Amino acid sequence: CRDWFAAAAAARGLDVETDRNGNLWAWWGVPGPGAVVLGSHLDSVTDGGAFDGPLGVASAFAALDTVRASRPAPAAPAGRPVAVVAFADEEGARFGVACLGSRLATGAMDPDRARALSDADGVTLAEAMSSAGHDPARLGPDHEALGRIGSFVELHVEQGRRLVDLNAPVGLASVIWPHGRYRLSFSGQANHAGTTRLEDRRDPMLTFAHTVLATRERAARAGGRATIGRVEVEPNGTNAVPSVVRAWLDARAPSQDGLDELVAGIAAAAGERAGRDGTGLEVAVESLAPLVDFDPALTDRLAAVLGDPPRLPTQAGHDAGVLAAHVPAAMLFVRNPSGVSHSPAEHAEPADCLAGVAALARVLAAEVAR
Amino acid sequence: CRDWFAAAAAARGLDVETDRNGNLWAWWGVPGPGAVVLGSHLDSVTDGGAFDGPLGVASAFAALDTVRASRPAPAAPAGRPVAVVAFADEEGARFGVACLGSRLATGAMDPDRARALSDADGVTLAEAMSSAGHDPARLGPDHEALGRIGSFVELHVEQGRRLVDLNAPVGLASVIWPHGRYRLSFSGQANHAGTTRLEDRRDPMLTFAHTVLATRERAARAGGRATIGRVEVEPNGTNAVPSVVRAWLDARAPSQDGLDELVAGIAAAAGERAGRDGTGLEVAVESLAPLVDFDPALTDRLAAVLGDPPRLPTQAGHDAGVLAAHVPAAMLFVRNPSGVSHSPAEHAEPADCLAGVAALARVLAAEVAR
Repeated sequence: CRDWFAAAAAARGLDVETDRNGNLWAWWGVPGPGAVVLGSHLDSVTDGGAFDGPLGVASAFAALDTVRASRPAPAAPAGRPVAVVAFADEEGARFGVACLGSRLATGAMDPDRARALSDADGVTLAEAMSSAGHDPARLGPDHEALGRIGSFVELHVEQGRRLVDLNAPVGLASVIWPHGRYRLSFSGQANHAGTTRLEDRRDPMLTFAHTVLATRERAARAGGRATIGRVEVEPNGTNAVPSVVRAWLDARAPSQDGLDELVAGIAAAAGERAGRDGTGLEVAVESLAPLVDFDPALTDRLAAVLGDPPRLPTQAGHDAGVLAAHVPAAMLFVRNPSGVSHSPAEHAEPADCLAGVAALARVLAAEVAR
Repeated sequence: CRDWFAAAAAARGLDVETDRNGNLWAWWGVPGPGAVVLGSHLDSVTDGGAFDGPLGVASAFAALDTVRASRPAPAAPAGRPVAVVAFADEEGARFGVACLGSRLATGAMDPDRARALSDADGVTLAEAMSSAGHDPARLGPDHEALGRIGSFVELHVEQGRRLVDLNAPVGLASVIWPHGRYRLSFSGQANHAGTTRLEDRRDPMLTFAHTVLATRERAARAGGRATIGRVEVEPNGTNAVPSVVRAWLDARAPSQDGLDELVAGIAAAAGERAGRDGTGLEVAVESLAPLVDFDPALTDRLAAVLGDPPRLPTQAGHDAGVLAAHVPAAMLFVRNPSGVSHSPAEHAEPADCLAGVAALARVLAAEVAR
């Protein structure tokens, strides 16, 4: 995908830079302050789809083509410089931390901690970067790269069905819901599945199962989202009552208070059941992402250029959300008829993708001319 | 442990044979028909205890010492020949099939299937046997070894708390409950844990969780045992609704009808919930072990010699259960104050272990003299 990015830039006569954190930048015009930056990421999750990430990068190149439609293309834009960006490791699929390229650039991620992250085979991020020909010693805050961004617009396939319900091909992001990841450790006593009487068991699988169902019920009541999608069991034997079940809770809500209440409710339900099952419960916060408000002035300019498309909150983290605390950032969403994301079923119709490109081109032209 | 067995035999002047299936035999007297055979197994489960298996082998050597208490020990018993046996791979911890040594010997396990079994690293049983200096081509039914067994008595630590409740150090086995292992595959749709509305999800984790709780409820109602202790999730990501949850059900009941009813009830509860969750359910039988009745004549002889100790059903498989279809077999249980098994907490007090040895020695003397 990174080779494709370099080829797409070269085909358009754009210079490519790789910044200290591995993010790719293709420049139209002289890199400098006030730049209009479009893009997203190229990496995906395991068993993911084709659109989450790449659609935003491909659409950025296509929008640039639209704006430069005259032949030969001008060597520089008539106004602000323009860059197409592909942020590194947005999904965190290998090293477990999402938005790593943008978090490192903004200083939200400590470079020492990043270098020490390791994958499932024990390979560290530093080792993986070195193998790929990058110098991990250069990781860290990148004031130069951030200082050049006048506005950042990330186009992304929608990861839900709001635009389907609203019958609109393209929408604007309003906020990113606050989001937390929590590790729930249920501990009991390993025992023989045949010979141990039910009343003598301290089976953490029961506490876990009750917590899964409580998680769904509490999320529905809170108008939020809460999911248990990752589980580890010890010893994980067919004929053994488990000693430990570890589960990871992903929780999101429209407000920080709502999120706090949701997670407290789930933990209370789990704790109450643990008391009945004779099991132990530990809850650890693995990560917290606060509410993100996208830049109101930039979002209003986009709305004006695009004829006031629907504005939707998103429940997913994005590089644009990480950048929003530092530079004007906004997001466009393209309708996804499946409503599905992080799955091969994730989809956008060609006509809607072209509507996204057209919208991004109008945004680009307007921002360049500011 | 196998080296220890060889040393224990050598210290007593006993010849050791390794049979074609890797089972170890230490002979007192000339190997031949009508032998009185005592023993159990030396292997354990991952994170298991010290007693399940080894207590039966060590007690067999100790019982033999008691019977041969005169010095110097006689070169042969005054009656039937005697053997101490350690059956290979009783737990199936590495290759997944329990009682492999005794199943191969009796023909209950096909040798081609056994050779092809592979461990978590992809090493086959045939490769592992070769590495350990055994010829896997020799695996298979062993009429010679079985034909020499006049009676087999396996002493085992109790894996529950019946003897605690009955205030007895030693008990006799009546039957082994029928037992089944079933693979439950819950399928849904992988999706983004943040952006996918609850009502758009087909989350197999919910169906699984409901099934875990139903399993416990049904087992309690049936007076049986049912456990879900092994789980695999795909893609097993913190921010992904799972596409698949696979779970293994271990179910046991006092009768075959009871077991059938228990498993049908669990499958019905899972299927009903799958309908509500929009998920799929497949149930596959991985193994079935029928009710085992230990030899009534042998068990009655043991009861007479031992002053009618309590008789208890067991819910675990044993080599003695595999052999019971082919030769007279019986079991003695030693009290386990923890009631716990397949765990480091598994225990037997020294006084109870000695009571077990004394019982086994009385049995041995009586059987040799028959």
